[in-house]
Amino acid sequence: MDYVSIRKHYEELKSRKLSLDISRGKPGPDQLDLSNPMLSVSLQEGYCSVSGADCRNYGGIDGIPEMRGIFADILGLAASDIIIGGNSSLNLMFDRISGFCLHGVNRGEPWFKQGAVKFICPVPGYDRHFGICEYFNIEMMPIEMTDTGPDMDAVETLVQSDCLIKGMWCVPVYSNPTGCVYSDETIRRIARLKPKAPDFRLFWDNAYPVHNFGEARPVIPNILKECSLNGNADMPLIFASFSKISFPGSAVSAVAASENNKKGILEQLNHQTVGPDKINQLRHVRFFKNADGVYTHMEKLSRIIKPKFDVVLSALDELNGLSAWSKPKGGYFIHFRSADGNAKRIVELCRGAGLTITGAGAVYPYSYDPRDRDLRIAPTYARIHELKDAMDIFCAAVKLSYIEKMESIKSST
Amino acid sequence: MDYVSIRKHYEELKSRKLSLDISRGKPGPDQLDLSNPMLSVSLQEGYCSVSGADCRNYGGIDGIPEMRGIFADILGLAASDIIIGGNSSLNLMFDRISGFCLHGVNRGEPWFKQGAVKFICPVPGYDRHFGICEYFNIEMMPIEMTDTGPDMDAVETLVQSDCLIKGMWCVPVYSNPTGCVYSDETIRRIARLKPKAPDFRLFWDNAYPVHNFGEARPVIPNILKECSLNGNADMPLIFASFSKISFPGSAVSAVAASENNKKGILEQLNHQTVGPDKINQLRHVRFFKNADGVYTHMEKLSRIIKPKFDVVLSALDELNGLSAWSKPKGGYFIHFRSADGNAKRIVELCRGAGLTITGAGAVYPYSYDPRDRDLRIAPTYARIHELKDAMDIFCAAVKLSYIEKMESIKSST
Repeated sequence: MDYVSIRKHYEELKSRKLSLDISRGKPGPDQLDLSNPMLSVSLQEGYCSVSGADCRNYGGIDGIPEMRGIFADILGLAASDIIIGGNSSLNLMFDRISGFCLHGVNRGEPWFKQGAVKFICPVPGYDRHFGICEYFNIEMMPIEMTDTGPDMDAVETLVQSDCLIKGMWCVPVYSNPTGCVYSDETIRRIARLKPKAPDFRLFWDNAYPVHNFGEARPVIPNILKECSLNGNADMPLIFASFSKISFPGSAVSAVAASENNKKGILEQLNHQTVGPDKINQLRHVRFFKNADGVYTHMEKLSRIIKPKFDVVLSALDELNGLSAWSKPKGGYFIHFRSADGNAKRIVELCRGAGLTITGAGAVYPYSYDPRDRDLRIAPTYARIHELKDAMDIFCAAVKLSYIEKMESIKSST
Repeated sequence: MDYVSIRKHYEELKSRKLSLDISRGKPGPDQLDLSNPMLSVSLQEGYCSVSGADCRNYGGIDGIPEMRGIFADILGLAASDIIIGGNSSLNLMFDRISGFCLHGVNRGEPWFKQGAVKFICPVPGYDRHFGICEYFNIEMMPIEMTDTGPDMDAVETLVQSDCLIKGMWCVPVYSNPTGCVYSDETIRRIARLKPKAPDFRLFWDNAYPVHNFGEARPVIPNILKECSLNGNADMPLIFASFSKISFPGSAVSAVAASENNKKGILEQLNHQTVGPDKINQLRHVRFFKNADGVYTHMEKLSRIIKPKFDVVLSALDELNGLSAWSKPKGGYFIHFRSADGNAKRIVELCRGAGLTITGAGAVYPYSYDPRDRDLRIAPTYARIHELKDAMDIFCAAVKLSYIEKMESIKSST
């Protein structure tokens, strides 16, 4: 590897004036096409739920039973645990935090009155989770994400020590961006947590439970049950969504929780909305029919997604020894770890050659990666040939960043 | 009118063991049927917006241009004034107040830090507006609703006197429940208000702009423009919805506001959601085509709704001299004013004979009607023959309540 040839290759790529984007976890049009029949599901002859409710009209604040049933089966819960939301689970999370800040958790002391509230944030993590915390002035405490989930020694120590620590973000399956699946032991340790704050809530964003690539779906312990067995029934709030199953902009979301928590959520919802879109729920139910229908659909999706991950992963092979990256078995992202101090420069070099990747630091609270090394690759939106070009640029950028650093070390000594 | 015959008539009605409901402004199934073709609008061959955006995917936080265009035409605004929301304009209002409480208006001092914030509430008014205020601990200050809108002398005095008065609820067209349309003079006086609070906001819930019964659509002054002319560009937040145009549970909502306010709203939305359901917007656009399509649809709807209002109004004629009621030319409600102290008893007597009407007091903040006299009748959901039965019961209940009161006065003297 020498500076001149690497620089030359990078300049060649640059001269192609490409415009590529692997920055967001956005399904590709080929994925969306698989759900197209849902666009023409006619409900004209049957717009009623199994409950008999006319889905066109007002009512049904918690969603229609058959949609709750599908979520329940996917999540390994009971339909009665589930409240259906609108088209975005992000909204459900945002609204919980907004409600807790102003009204407290289940009529407890509002968070904003308690002082500088904090959340535990396993890193690298999901930028939109961090964005919500930042918006609500919730201080974020980063802890390390391991291959088996959050560093539980750190989590246990923190939650026991500070009653202002009110929450923790978790993406238990195919975590964003590392792709790890929390181990059973990690999940059981989470369920056994003894938070100092009685109003501590686990924000369990189970965004990818059925998003495996071909192999068996991961089966994780039921967090609601595990928490309940440990006297923590009210601790978890479980979020899920069809965003990456049907249409991202027009999906159905859900939150699952204990009776106490559901009561609190419904109290808020009864003031906030006339209820979620039941016609869209019905459309999903008619198209997917049941959980098995979802699994079959996900198999088809994985046949589109996995080859894209394979392109990225095999391209990265030429960086062996230079960097490390995750090899996820599902989900939407690959986590790439460069040498310390190189991430920003890699992003810059990529941009220079026409490739947009997720900003350096984005996987950290406040966009601050203290070692400037962690990046996220989102392979789904680009087409295969674009992805190959994108990875050419990415790999050239990584190599160039290393060489530049070595050159600068040499010249300064 | 004698006690015995009225009581006898009431008991006869009671013996029929009816179960009727005129409590909520819920469209009847016959109204919804008119939108049924929307259930089978196929988008399979065209899921892109005029902007070229793939409506199935993420993106487009402010909605698709053609949907903004239809709202703009209906409201007499520019498409650029409009941000599209989800299926419920209530949600847009709730979220504004939630945001203002926690984050302040456009990054000003959060309301919760300023003290006991207050809203002006013209009464009788809409119970869900009052419910939002109550949920956020916003003190409600009732002022009288006249035939031409809120009592503006009272409003002007109040907003100038107290910097904790942060908002006013307005339903300018076919107000809920009186059905009045604000006069041009009222609207211009509102636009000229000089609130002591710089972060005072007008919650302009224009829920029924095209909901006229056959006669010409009411044309009211453009509140955004009028406010702008008076140095109050940032004062109004205009809300609108297709809830009572297409399907109540699956409609499209919108908020219109100044550049400053839109910026604040979008900042919140960018943290809260992946964007509103663009497929549902597209479905509305393909079905209604444009504002003229909406007007034509509303004409058809009014041919269903007006006869129901006529049934109620002609039934009420037999109460001439006993009570007063509104004779709206559009909207969803009739306001009924009984003698002082009779409203609760009328509701009770109705319930006793199998008729549910909106609770006494519901049209007042805190459900407290100081003179216990104002009721709301919602004629749309029931079928014509049910409505006739319902009005039989209602009129009997009103008469009985009067007679009971006269008897009790007699017996106490």
